[in-house]
Amino acid sequence: MSNKDIAPKYAEIAELAVNMVEGIKRTGIQVIELRDRYVKLCMPLEGNSNHVGIMYAGSLFTLGEITGGMIPFVALDMTDLVPIVKEVNIRFVAPGTSDVFMISEISEEDAATIQQTASENGKADFRLELELKDANDSVVAIVNGLWQVRNMGSLNQ
Amino acid sequence: MSNKDIAPKYAEIAELAVNMVEGIKRTGIQVIELRDRYVKLCMPLEGNSNHVGIMYAGSLFTLGEITGGMIPFVALDMTDLVPIVKEVNIRFVAPGTSDVFMISEISEEDAATIQQTASENGKADFRLELELKDANDSVVAIVNGLWQVRNMGSLNQ
Repeated sequence: MSNKDIAPKYAEIAELAVNMVEGIKRTGIQVIELRDRYVKLCMPLEGNSNHVGIMYAGSLFTLGEITGGMIPFVALDMTDLVPIVKEVNIRFVAPGTSDVFMISEISEEDAATIQQTASENGKADFRLELELKDANDSVVAIVNGLWQVRNMGSLNQ
Repeated sequence: MSNKDIAPKYAEIAELAVNMVEGIKRTGIQVIELRDRYVKLCMPLEGNSNHVGIMYAGSLFTLGEITGGMIPFVALDMTDLVPIVKEVNIRFVAPGTSDVFMISEISEEDAATIQQTASENGKADFRLELELKDANDSVVAIVNGLWQVRNMGSLNQ
């Protein structure tokens, strides 16, 4: 596992992201780096291997899916907004035989667009394409997901 | 949780499916019915709810993904074949506020086609479209997945 580099202002986000949901916490997923508009996560192989010793598909899914819930909190003003996941596609490219890492970063421009759309419409969809890579920097899975930030008052719409 | 109805010849498959991989076992997923070409599973809400009390997206993914690994064992002659998952798409339709159920069944014709393709080519892709439903029979998520059965000797191809 790498040394951690988490911006102090995001310490609580880093803590909640991996501990608040039991199904996430029990994977042992780690936040490695967290700063403005940038997330790096690690899914340990230990506790997440399948019957043939490679990383379980569901743990790779978690590594991708959690990202869409975290990016808004390091890229947007989330006052009154919550993130939800709408759709996730995951393509398994190669067996994951080590810890698996995921880096996601969005631009200031994209963040500003999402923020403005949410401000105007009460919600804003955003897509992320994520490469999940092993310890040798080889891609093991590709995640394409559609998430949304929406006003807390519009959750039933 | 419903009463279980597992064909005796599939008792071992039912046991292994939910217990062999730690990431699956810790969800508490249950095999409810298992017979020729038919699988019914249940993901309990307990232990799989998120921070707002609805079912965690990753647990819904597990419920769908495991199905593609089980169907071959109740539909095909799996001597020398193993199932792998290639790609999974999951669309979240409504919050899962109860245990979530998944039924999958394939026809004799489809099973025969997969078997024949695997016999001829050493591998055969198959797609499943799965509806994950809550206790009121309402759809909470739709999974479209692509799996493959392949000859154990061709795993590195």
